[in-house]
Amino acid sequence: MRIVALAGGIGGARFLRGLKDVVTPEDEITVIGNTGDDIHLFGLKVCPDLDTVMYTLGGGIHEEQGWGRADETWSVKAEMKAYGVGPEWFGLGDKDFATHIVRSQMLTAGYSLSQVTEALCVRWKPGVRLLPMSDDRVETHVRITDSEGTRAVHFQEYWVRLHAAVDAEAIIPVGADTAKPAPGVLEAIAAADVILFPPSNPVVSIGTILAVPGIRQAVSAAAAPVVGLSPIIGGAPVRGMADKVLAAVGVAATADAVALHYGADLLDGWLVDTQDAGAVAAVEAAGIPCRAVPLLMTDADATAAMARAALELAEQVRS
Amino acid sequence: MRIVALAGGIGGARFLRGLKDVVTPEDEITVIGNTGDDIHLFGLKVCPDLDTVMYTLGGGIHEEQGWGRADETWSVKAEMKAYGVGPEWFGLGDKDFATHIVRSQMLTAGYSLSQVTEALCVRWKPGVRLLPMSDDRVETHVRITDSEGTRAVHFQEYWVRLHAAVDAEAIIPVGADTAKPAPGVLEAIAAADVILFPPSNPVVSIGTILAVPGIRQAVSAAAAPVVGLSPIIGGAPVRGMADKVLAAVGVAATADAVALHYGADLLDGWLVDTQDAGAVAAVEAAGIPCRAVPLLMTDADATAAMARAALELAEQVRS
Repeated sequence: MRIVALAGGIGGARFLRGLKDVVTPEDEITVIGNTGDDIHLFGLKVCPDLDTVMYTLGGGIHEEQGWGRADETWSVKAEMKAYGVGPEWFGLGDKDFATHIVRSQMLTAGYSLSQVTEALCVRWKPGVRLLPMSDDRVETHVRITDSEGTRAVHFQEYWVRLHAAVDAEAIIPVGADTAKPAPGVLEAIAAADVILFPPSNPVVSIGTILAVPGIRQAVSAAAAPVVGLSPIIGGAPVRGMADKVLAAVGVAATADAVALHYGADLLDGWLVDTQDAGAVAAVEAAGIPCRAVPLLMTDADATAAMARAALELAEQVRS
Repeated sequence: MRIVALAGGIGGARFLRGLKDVVTPEDEITVIGNTGDDIHLFGLKVCPDLDTVMYTLGGGIHEEQGWGRADETWSVKAEMKAYGVGPEWFGLGDKDFATHIVRSQMLTAGYSLSQVTEALCVRWKPGVRLLPMSDDRVETHVRITDSEGTRAVHFQEYWVRLHAAVDAEAIIPVGADTAKPAPGVLEAIAAADVILFPPSNPVVSIGTILAVPGIRQAVSAAAAPVVGLSPIIGGAPVRGMADKVLAAVGVAATADAVALHYGADLLDGWLVDTQDAGAVAAVEAAGIPCRAVPLLMTDADATAAMARAALELAEQVRS
């Protein structure tokens, strides 16, 4: 079975680990990773979501934190502070810096982000084929209004520095309109037996991937059933501040509103948490088969059960 | 008093620390640093000699080692090895990496190496004005013949990787012929009251600085007395493998041969170690006033005494 998953960072990566636990060795998983979170820091290209997937599936992630490396050291960051070179608000550990140095060196040498990602995965062996959504630069910016006025800031500045404490007025995937899907992305979607939307952020993770011209159309046109998992449980994001960016696109932070935001032209199935069982009817009324199952990734077993439920729903809607 | 010193790495930096100990607060020291040892590693610009001077005078040097940072960590290097990205033979610690990341970011942004060096020194406060010999790229290569044939390797590969175990057949300062002295270099030399050649490598450190068109001529034409200190004691380099590169330019590894290599057109005075007192006559016969004094930088006092002897000789030859 060929499974394609669109994925953001922490939530997507953890779900993918559960997915790997339930597939057979013959199954192939292709992950299309969000690169809208990418940022240039200290002259280096940082790809937070790709790295979170790579580190999580490759066994190098800081488990409790969900991002960055286990057993990390922080010498470079301390030195940057001593040099007065910012930003200070983005946490790059020494081991993580090495990834960005290697990536930047390869990009400067002329390799594409796809090629670089493949090279990094030679070490990490994530057990999936990890493709960036695009080799072109796409950067999600967020329009905000605060004491400094109305302006657009990089998504990372909004998320990490400002902790999404101010309302997001608009989400702007800068460069997405002219970006091309990375090699293999459209082919993987077209050839898929199942397409999954993990419980990643529907706006700035999966939404950004879908904003690359051709990808939404390919998912919509795919023969494979498309099944998503709600990142909203009980009216709030399980992790992160997805409600803030949902509000920016006029979507309520509820399990059913997210499903309707994706829409029946994309989704062939939707999973909500058991505590959102009341949302099933609204989703099905929109033409999207829906099931209520436990969606908290509390441990490996719970996560695997979610992946199994997603694959089961895909089989049900296929026939 | 305005003192100008040409300097390589470890030996030059340690001498400069002694020099700082004997000058008055009103004296100004300008250091013209060798950049022929510079190398691009992992896509980053590394300036070993400038950094050794900066770290040594700024209090950040690894004292026993003579290069690199005190209390260093090595996470990035371990990661590079895990990624299979070399070279492994060049020791860059995490703190040191930070310097190269900041430097590379600034260079990419369009700042000159002079400007970058000045910016880095805002933190390190070396107590001297540190100028790179040139803002243009100069790389010392060494011609060798070994089992892989005859070829030119980067000086760092010769020195650090091959430990100068094979003979150097030629020293080639690639790019030196078209390099321009960095802003302030010629002016500092012309305005100097004293010019010093620390006991740095006469070929690949001071020799490379002098190979930048205009610098040798400026030193030769300067009104100030030029006094050098022999890096060779008892027929061998105090540190490093200077004999190997001296042989490449046909100069014997003796205190007097090095003086004659610089020549009376450059030198107005030369210090040899007391155990090389027998060389004084030969140096003076070539028209270069010479003194035998202890030249081992065993501690701060011994180093300060060397600097004092150099300044005293400069005063003697001035009149």
